[in-house]
Amino acid sequence: MGNELTSRSVDYAQWYNDLILKGGLADYSAVRGCMVIKPYGYALWENMKDELDRMFKETGHVNAYFPLFVPKSFLEKEEGHAEGFAKECAVVTHYRLKTDPHQKGKLIVDPEAKLEEELIVRPTSEAIIWNAYKDWIQSYRDLPLLINQWANVVRWEMRTRLFLRTAEFLWQEGHTAHATSEEAIEEAEKMLHVYADFVENYMALPVIKGVKTPNERFAGALETYCIEALMQDGKALQAGTSHFLGQNFAKAFEVKYLTKENKQEYVWATSWGVSTRLIGALVMAHSDDEGLVLPPKIAPLLVVIVPVYKGPEQKALVDEKVHGILVSLKAVGISVKYDDSDNARPGWKFAEYEMKGVPVRIAIGPKDIENGVVEIARRDTKEKKSVSSEGLSTYVQSLLEEIQQNLYNKALAFRDASITEVNSWDEFKKVISEKGGFVSAHWDGTGETEDKIKEETKATIRCIPLNNKLETGTCVFSGKPSQQRVLFAQAY
Amino acid sequence: MGNELTSRSVDYAQWYNDLILKGGLADYSAVRGCMVIKPYGYALWENMKDELDRMFKETGHVNAYFPLFVPKSFLEKEEGHAEGFAKECAVVTHYRLKTDPHQKGKLIVDPEAKLEEELIVRPTSEAIIWNAYKDWIQSYRDLPLLINQWANVVRWEMRTRLFLRTAEFLWQEGHTAHATSEEAIEEAEKMLHVYADFVENYMALPVIKGVKTPNERFAGALETYCIEALMQDGKALQAGTSHFLGQNFAKAFEVKYLTKENKQEYVWATSWGVSTRLIGALVMAHSDDEGLVLPPKIAPLLVVIVPVYKGPEQKALVDEKVHGILVSLKAVGISVKYDDSDNARPGWKFAEYEMKGVPVRIAIGPKDIENGVVEIARRDTKEKKSVSSEGLSTYVQSLLEEIQQNLYNKALAFRDASITEVNSWDEFKKVISEKGGFVSAHWDGTGETEDKIKEETKATIRCIPLNNKLETGTCVFSGKPSQQRVLFAQAY
Repeated sequence: MGNELTSRSVDYAQWYNDLILKGGLADYSAVRGCMVIKPYGYALWENMKDELDRMFKETGHVNAYFPLFVPKSFLEKEEGHAEGFAKECAVVTHYRLKTDPHQKGKLIVDPEAKLEEELIVRPTSEAIIWNAYKDWIQSYRDLPLLINQWANVVRWEMRTRLFLRTAEFLWQEGHTAHATSEEAIEEAEKMLHVYADFVENYMALPVIKGVKTPNERFAGALETYCIEALMQDGKALQAGTSHFLGQNFAKAFEVKYLTKENKQEYVWATSWGVSTRLIGALVMAHSDDEGLVLPPKIAPLLVVIVPVYKGPEQKALVDEKVHGILVSLKAVGISVKYDDSDNARPGWKFAEYEMKGVPVRIAIGPKDIENGVVEIARRDTKEKKSVSSEGLSTYVQSLLEEIQQNLYNKALAFRDASITEVNSWDEFKKVISEKGGFVSAHWDGTGETEDKIKEETKATIRCIPLNNKLETGTCVFSGKPSQQRVLFAQAY
Repeated sequence: MGNELTSRSVDYAQWYNDLILKGGLADYSAVRGCMVIKPYGYALWENMKDELDRMFKETGHVNAYFPLFVPKSFLEKEEGHAEGFAKECAVVTHYRLKTDPHQKGKLIVDPEAKLEEELIVRPTSEAIIWNAYKDWIQSYRDLPLLINQWANVVRWEMRTRLFLRTAEFLWQEGHTAHATSEEAIEEAEKMLHVYADFVENYMALPVIKGVKTPNERFAGALETYCIEALMQDGKALQAGTSHFLGQNFAKAFEVKYLTKENKQEYVWATSWGVSTRLIGALVMAHSDDEGLVLPPKIAPLLVVIVPVYKGPEQKALVDEKVHGILVSLKAVGISVKYDDSDNARPGWKFAEYEMKGVPVRIAIGPKDIENGVVEIARRDTKEKKSVSSEGLSTYVQSLLEEIQQNLYNKALAFRDASITEVNSWDEFKKVISEKGGFVSAHWDGTGETEDKIKEETKATIRCIPLNNKLETGTCVFSGKPSQQRVLFAQAY
């Protein structure tokens, strides 16, 4: 199984697709652009979701659920928002099928059941949520309103890729309402830090925090904060965004509140989201030619134990020893599976669990038992070691922490080595096309220059880093004056 | 707030709607038949979901996620299934909007973006899931396949009611595949018992387990198992169903497996689901004219503490005492809120938390502190008691258990008193129209009789109880011979 994976150096895109399928994370579906998230991939998502949900609740947010459908007229209310999403949305026009009078067993859309107003399958929920907030917010006592939703959304993308860009995806979307602009900006920034904390400390993936240029902002936002990560092929990936929406949606949906001073004011808004796209980022950041490499803090399974034996007598001996290990690992909260299935040899199992990215593998046979040891292989470095079976759970606990840290360090070293400062247009083009990664360059601040750079190099401004150093220079493309460097990259 | 609730005796249906809205569980939305699940209602759903999810995993199931959309041709493949769902489904026909050339700021459906094949927003996922299973199942080693999905589904109901019947609702749907008919039936029955366990032991609501008559079966099933609960107005409510699907979907989607004996066989299927409808059942089963009554095992908040004081000095004294209580309750895992907001008097707060169904209320003032006591009010019986503040957490723990048990006992006594054996058609009609509840009566086993009884009395056969006593008799309606009594009721 292991050797069927295309290697990264041969075809990175193919390696990624192979890995998603063979690692058992997802599958193509019969519906254009939609995927099936398989049990192993979903278990990974559940672990990610649980941590994020805990973080959202710790920062004062509560969950709610709003309708899947957005009436067309709601989408129209915020102009920028409408423009951004109208071109790629699934439209429900009818509410009934009927049997085809001309073809037995076939169904046709019932023309009598046409909706008066078309419904859009939510591409994001600002419009439907702000329409509800209109009734929920009356006075300053109702603010801030800090709500999150876990949901599926649909954007009719023309070119799709498993996890990275699918017509339907799972995500969370926070939608908050505040009395002042300052509070809303503070919230948008706070959630950016929550995302960065999660991606760095759970997914072991370093990110750069910044803001998007006006060109790249969310449709309807005044400011879009983002975290940007780097993949192994040198392309950047936007891992999460948090938007300061100003009063745009409050005005579109007439959401006002009574201040302490008895005045009617429009409220201020944020929205923020991360999605199953993060799974794509995770796979592309850490995995290798043998399969997935998953950080222990979110891996669905931490340890697999594979017995190595000949005949039922040896098997019984190994079983007994393994039983004790299972108990001791479970006692400290480590998820573990004993794979003693008899339909595959140990080597085949080793390859299978490497493909699945299980962080630690323990192999054990009669000789090991005699010597009071087990063989431990870590997935990240593929290092194997004979380890005393005494105090094994403590050893495995600290090994898991070490693996988590090592994955982060490795990704950080790679990322840092992939940020290149350039000062000329030739240098810019050379680095983007040959080395890849982030290019730190002066930019004149105009959308026109940004567009032209994108046209020539496919590189976009990933972000203007937060707390960016101010530094006088000239734009690499136009030669016009610039106050700071920004980060360019080709991106997913 | 409390006195705005319509009383049950005046208008039960209005009482229910008032309560859902004023209890903060849900709200109407701008989309016909769709509701917004508000934070308090969603927190309740999360608690229910967490327990169910744990139970599913303990019985060997894993979660996955399948597309929201079902191609029309997939729905056609299983004839009974198609008939059952085609008449009430949301149909996606286009994938793009465009700006209206005749009206600035308006959007219209882009006629150029018509889908070749219409997509149905899933009313249930058998069709899309069995199409995936075709690729996942090859050999007996791939069986059983035990998968669950948490998802939203849409059924275009004409008459909707908050939680009980909404166009979109949240649910879980288990879809399992087995090598033999026996195994599939065992699975369908096992999940029925899991549902009954959950509803009885967490929701404190007794249920009757049974099977549906052919008339009332799920579209595409060979057998539908169900749990039926009784509401306070004497109507029954189907709280969950589990279906034995035979080989219908395997045949429709050509899902075969290679047996140990090297033969190709169709696989056997089950599906089972419960939904946010359970919240409606919960509300109607236990609540009263003052508001919600929630069982401690799933209530979002178990204890609320309300200070009773005059002036900042007394407030400081109470604060200090409450601080200790908060610590001791949280230490034993009891969720607790200290409501010391200054914009409402204690009496108003009491009424508010009664409306929200918080199981235990603690009131505390300077005099209580002097006497070393607190005042405890339980929501279920509204009994108030002065209790020593020493060992309070132990007292509250056992009180919560007592409340849970009391709610169940009360519902059980009511349910048992509401099962009436009848032996004549006059008696049947009289009991159904005057007393309500379940009517246990002989039935001749035909769909025609069932239809006629429904037409005359609005009562349907809720179920044929599992392990039903066989007993010779004559059908109350037709006078034809019958082997057993079945349970009739008017139902939600």
